[in-house]
This record gives sequence, structure tokens and C-alpha cells, in this order.
Amino acid sequence: MVLGPGDDCAILVSSTKSLLITIDSMVEKVHFKCEWGTPEMLGAKALAVNLSDIAAMGGRATACVVNLAIRPGLDTGFFDALYRGLTKAAAAAGVAVAGGNITRASELAITVALLGEVDQQPLRRDSARPGDRIYVTGTVGDAALGLRILQNQVSAAGSVRNQLVKRFLQPTAQLGAGRKLARLKPPPAAIDISDGLWQDLGHVLERSGVGAQVDRTALPLSAAYRQVCGNSCDLALSGGEDYELLFCLRPRISEAELSRRLGVKVRCIGEITRDKRALLVDKTGEPSIVPMRGWDQLRAI
Amino acid sequence: MVLGPGDDCAILVSSTKSLLITIDSMVEKVHFKCEWGTPEMLGAKALAVNLSDIAAMGGRATACVVNLAIRPGLDTGFFDALYRGLTKAAAAAGVAVAGGNITRASELAITVALLGEVDQQPLRRDSARPGDRIYVTGTVGDAALGLRILQNQVSAAGSVRNQLVKRFLQPTAQLGAGRKLARLKPPPAAIDISDGLWQDLGHVLERSGVGAQVDRTALPLSAAYRQVCGNSCDLALSGGEDYELLFCLRPRISEAELSRRLGVKVRCIGEITRDKRALLVDKTGEPSIVPMRGWDQLRAI
Repeated sequence: MVLGPGDDCAILVSSTKSLLITIDSMVEKVHFKCEWGTPEMLGAKALAVNLSDIAAMGGRATACVVNLAIRPGLDTGFFDALYRGLTKAAAAAGVAVAGGNITRASELAITVALLGEVDQQPLRRDSARPGDRIYVTGTVGDAALGLRILQNQVSAAGSVRNQLVKRFLQPTAQLGAGRKLARLKPPPAAIDISDGLWQDLGHVLERSGVGAQVDRTALPLSAAYRQVCGNSCDLALSGGEDYELLFCLRPRISEAELSRRLGVKVRCIGEITRDKRALLVDKTGEPSIVPMRGWDQLRAI
Repeated sequence: MVLGPGDDCAILVSSTKSLLITIDSMVEKVHFKCEWGTPEMLGAKALAVNLSDIAAMGGRATACVVNLAIRPGLDTGFFDALYRGLTKAAAAAGVAVAGGNITRASELAITVALLGEVDQQPLRRDSARPGDRIYVTGTVGDAALGLRILQNQVSAAGSVRNQLVKRFLQPTAQLGAGRKLARLKPPPAAIDISDGLWQDLGHVLERSGVGAQVDRTALPLSAAYRQVCGNSCDLALSGGEDYELLFCLRPRISEAELSRRLGVKVRCIGEITRDKRALLVDKTGEPSIVPMRGWDQLRAI
């Protein structure tokens, strides 16, 4: 960064690599309530949801600009803490906070535009091919369950509650795994799971012009998730906010070997098919066609 | 642009030039009311206010990402028109709309993050030197007056009204003049007048560690402005939303020659001084020290 906040624009050193850019916003009463966590967590999450998009392209995040819409009733201590959380998360990811803008509004909203770069071919959604295995990093459904616990729709206590709520309030982007995936040849199709596994898989299928068969029993569910939901996969399939990566790869190496190479546990959940439908199957019965729905950005919490 | 909207990030071709990045937001009831203009105008202005920041750095705008916070009560026709206005303005400025995000909110808000690049040294706020003349492009105060007409605080009719309201609703960024200024050696200090001439001049003085003496009678006021406000300079000094450029330059060529070279009428309004104060003088009396205040982003309209 040549020039940071304080001028009309920030000035960055440009490279000859592919440049990535993404934008995402967190709005009070749509994505969060202030009383659910600390302002530091909000600032860090506003960056993390963007980092996850860079991770899904196999990139390294470089710089961000922040638009903060502030409302009456929140003091400067709140905003200092929010900014502290954001800058700390930015420093940890090697991201320069290049500038920002503050505006008044009736709801708190934090919008981050994030730049990144990628040395190799970026990971795209449109390159899944029939015969690819579908993999998911980490576990899915925890964040959606954590949200429902915060909303008092589901009850949980102790470390189970803490673990699930933490997945919602303090998500981690899979930047390391994304960058390692981008070094594979050919680069796998990839997407981050922000709107729910099933809907995000749908984006890959649509853009790649393929279908998929997913094994419901293979979905990676955490022990905490199982303790609350048993074997119900609803939130794991369509809950959203996981910020894990879903990617599609030729089946050349084992799940264990792939997990070792990417530095994160991955699970094969199914296969890309030529038939342009998404089938959810399990060992107990017939395949079912599940409508591709997930987290709806336009509904309120 | 290698890959536009539809993936986790957009992919841009990177160059070896200095990269500029800026973000700005327009929030309903803070910056505008929907009934004042058309949604096309809103979309175009959301881009223009960012283009103005790129202009103030002497850059060329290249790509943007858009975050749209939508509220109930506005139909898809409204958003289609808003997006049409934005994309049309983007195309006219050679800007690729690289991606976006839509979220729900209780107020309409359009946030644009804009990238640009600059071949030469960017125009910065921190390079004004004692002895520089202070110039302003176009006329100042019209947009602030247009806003007050829309708010029914000031009355005006016919072409005078239309001209002033248009300056508020449909501002134009001085991209051409900015790029020409960046070719001068040394590059002048520059800022865009978005928060009001006096406040924005203050940013230049503060960052450059200098003062200024401004001639109140030299401020470039339009005939329409004079027709409504006479010789009162209040809105011209502190109104905001002009999106003209203020720049500081060694006095080597005439105002007329400089206007010709930049392709826009410029006016010399004063001089940078060693004394770190901002003095407003006129031919009729004593210099006065005016507090550096202008458009307050945090108040509501």
C-alpha cells in the first residue's frame, strides 16, 4: 500500500497477477443483532465473509475498503471496538485496510470490498465436470444451528452451545485450503458455502452445466450438531453461513491424503453427473430431488 | 475483466500501474429521497460520487463492485432502473461492473467500491506548498442549493430551479481534468469538493501542513446561484456535493490558458500560505477566520 486512508482514494502497488474483487455487507436485524456478540466479533466477521470469497477463488487477500453505516444509540467505544476487530482480522490475513467511508443510517451496516490476487488459475464455479468427486471442508450446519440458538428457536447449553454459536459469530475463511487447491492442475471448481451447501452446490452445477448426486449420510456433521439435531441434515444442507469450501475434483487421491495436503479435514459427499439434476441419496431408500434453496439474503432474521 | 458477476469474486486483469481504490455510499433519507428523482439518477450518482474520488487522484476508473441494500416497498422495476442508470454511467466512464451483492435493509442504500489506475504520479492531498495558487473547476454551491430547493427550504422556479436541482441529482465527476492535472510536473495537490469547498480545502491544508488565503469574491458562482443567493457565499463555501476539483499549482500560466488545457473552466480563488491558518478575505474589509466546516455526512437530510 503506497497511500492508506485519508486521501480521495487509497493507492496500492499493482502486480501482474490476476486481481480479485468482491463485496459483502452485514446489516443489523438482517444478518446480526448487536446483543449477540461483541463489536470486535462483528468487525472481524464483516471481513471474514469477504475473505471466504477470496478463499473460494484460491486467492490471497491484499487490501480492503470499508463502508460503515452507523446509527444513533451506539457510542464511539462500540465503533472503536468494531474497527479494532476488523483491523486485527485484517492484519492476521495480511490485508491492508486501505480506506473507508462513514455514513449515517437507521441500521448499523458494515460493507467491506476486498481485493485479492492469485498466482495460479483462479478457482471458478464453472469448471465442474461429470465424474468429479464433490468435497466439503470442515463441517456444515453448525453456524445455522448457532444462529437458531441465538434466536431461541433451538436450545442447547454448555460447550455444545458455545461451539455452535461461535461458528456463527466468529467464522473462519478457508484461505489456506483455497490457495492449496489453486495449485492443483487442473484447478478444481470451487465455491464457498455461505448460502447453504445445497444452494451453493446449485450455483456450481448451473454455471458448469452439470448435475450431482450427493450422499446425505456422507455430510460432515460435527458432534455438537449431532447432539442437537441427531441425523437431521436440514440445516447442514440449507442453513448457510458455514464459510467452508465446496470443491469438485477428479478422484485421484484418498480423502485422508487430500485432507493432509490441504491442511483441513475434507469429506467426499458425492459426485458430479452428466444428468443436470441434483439428487440427494442415502443408503436407506430412494433418491430424492431436493429443491435448491438455502439462506435467503432478503429475509430478516 | 476476465470474469464478471456470478462467481465468488470477479477476476480483473492487473496492470503494473498504481492501483486506486475508493468506497462511497448513498443512504436513503441521509443522502437522498426516492421521490426527488428517478432510480436511474440514483444509480448513476452512486457511481459518480466514486468517480469523483478517482478524478481527484488523476486516475482512470476501471471496475466497480456494488452493494445494494434494498427495502420493502420498492419493486423490481425500481431496481432494474437503478441498475440501468448505474451500468450506463459505468459504460460511459469505461468502468466494468465486476460484481455485486444484494441484502435486505430498512433503508435503501447503494454502496459502490471503485477501482482505478493512474499512469503518472497520483494527485495527493499532501503536496500543497506555500506560494501555490488554489484553483477550483466549474462552479460551487449549486448542488447544495439544489438540495435545499428539493427540501423546500429555498424556492426557485423554471430553468434556474432545474439547473440547480440537476447539479444535485446528476453530478458529473471531473475525470478529464483530473487526468490532465496528473500529467503536470510536479503533480498538483488535489481533492474533490464533496463535503464543501472550505472543509475540503481544510483537508489539503491539514495533510500538507500549510495554510491558505481565499478571496471570497473570487469564488466561481453560477448565474443561477447568484439569482437565488445574490453574493452570499455560504453554500458555495460549505454546501457540499459539488464534485468539482480543488487543486494547488505554481502560478505559471493564466487562468484562461489553464482552463483551455484542462478542458474545463477553472478559477483561481486564493493562495497557499506558510501560516497554518485558513483566511477568507474580500476587497471590502478585514480577513476573517472561518471555521472549517461543511457537509456533515452524519446528519440526516
